[in-house]
Amino acid sequence: MLSKVKIKQYQQLQFKKFRQKYGLFVVEGLKSVNELIQSKWPIESIVCSTSFEGKIESSDSIDLFSVKPKEFEMISQQKNPQGILAIAQFHQLNLEETPWQIALDNINNPGNLGTIIRIADWYGINTIYCSQDTVDLYNSKVIQSSMGSFLRVQLKYGNLTETLNQKDVYATVLDGKNIRTLPNIKSGVLLIGNEANGISESLTESLTHTPITIPGNIQTESLNAAMATAICCERLMG
Amino acid sequence: MLSKVKIKQYQQLQFKKFRQKYGLFVVEGLKSVNELIQSKWPIESIVCSTSFEGKIESSDSIDLFSVKPKEFEMISQQKNPQGILAIAQFHQLNLEETPWQIALDNINNPGNLGTIIRIADWYGINTIYCSQDTVDLYNSKVIQSSMGSFLRVQLKYGNLTETLNQKDVYATVLDGKNIRTLPNIKSGVLLIGNEANGISESLTESLTHTPITIPGNIQTESLNAAMATAICCERLMG
Repeated sequence: MLSKVKIKQYQQLQFKKFRQKYGLFVVEGLKSVNELIQSKWPIESIVCSTSFEGKIESSDSIDLFSVKPKEFEMISQQKNPQGILAIAQFHQLNLEETPWQIALDNINNPGNLGTIIRIADWYGINTIYCSQDTVDLYNSKVIQSSMGSFLRVQLKYGNLTETLNQKDVYATVLDGKNIRTLPNIKSGVLLIGNEANGISESLTESLTHTPITIPGNIQTESLNAAMATAICCERLMG
Repeated sequence: MLSKVKIKQYQQLQFKKFRQKYGLFVVEGLKSVNELIQSKWPIESIVCSTSFEGKIESSDSIDLFSVKPKEFEMISQQKNPQGILAIAQFHQLNLEETPWQIALDNINNPGNLGTIIRIADWYGINTIYCSQDTVDLYNSKVIQSSMGSFLRVQLKYGNLTETLNQKDVYATVLDGKNIRTLPNIKSGVLLIGNEANGISESLTESLTHTPITIPGNIQTESLNAAMATAICCERLMG
């Protein structure tokens, strides 16, 4: 039985402030919860609606609570919840970095960040550097749209100017070098800027490498940040 | 002054049934509305909230209504509306088809369809064939995520088995030929399947061409449909 106090605490996890206070976040859906259990990521508890009928991976050491559908909807952050979620703990993967990394300057849209984490996973990149103002990894929409890839890709939030200092940075801009003319490159950092404003000026100034561009038909506009990431990864690493 | 009857009619345009009944759909936001006006797409009217302060392109021949913020919110299909929208008429572009086209088999997610329209535009593809069960172009989320590209890319809904008969179809599957081993190809149809189930069996059986795959790190899973489209376009046409 899940206490009213706990239900309220879990409900508060939709806000970054409370996620940071408790060090907890929500992972929803049977597929993601099962992947979470298998990956050995630290889990505080699993919450099921009494109306849920799917099969959870064996998890003897994890607390499992069954709650009424109305209580479940209070905790869930989805419009049409499946009826199962896990309350997971903050956790650093501490992986040895792959030759390629991605850096994100002020990505605001949670769906974009989640999709970029998934693309990184697809291309075998295990590290994403994020500027401090990039949306929080533990936002439920980020976790959901990463489709489990957050279990294999580590995000490092910090000052990008410092992090990227001395690194081979391939910054995506509107008027850079045609990415299709580059050879296959063994290592580096792919830098993606904010959805509306691109890469911040102070960061651009600190970069020594030639910026790159994906040529396209729509001259005055940029591609969506996640699309641009996918295409650059395919060109540079595919 | 916009009558209550009209406000109700415009509000109903969130449903496909009523869009088809009236032959009208909603385009939201200043940038998209201005692009719509410039493109000469047929417009029934423009609706502004009295709280809206942006500048609309000159449009002497179009009815412009100013409504109270509360009335505007009734018509708007966005959570945080900008305060300007156009009521546009159904319209076929009738463009001569480009050498490459895209075909979509049962794409359900409006955001995916809108993004795919934008990708087509980016790669200079002006025609997308859609199966009958693909989400409606005039869905407001499709229009919004296409970011104006629906003004330059024509969608043709119909029976894909018939449409693709005798065409060079490159179907994306999980276990096809590595797309990176293909040469640059001058023309053809890129076929993308449903987000969860891929391309329907009856359609697959009718195809004569070798199916293709984007090799990736996550063995059991597929990429998001819009991501896969972007990467395939970059490989085949970039």
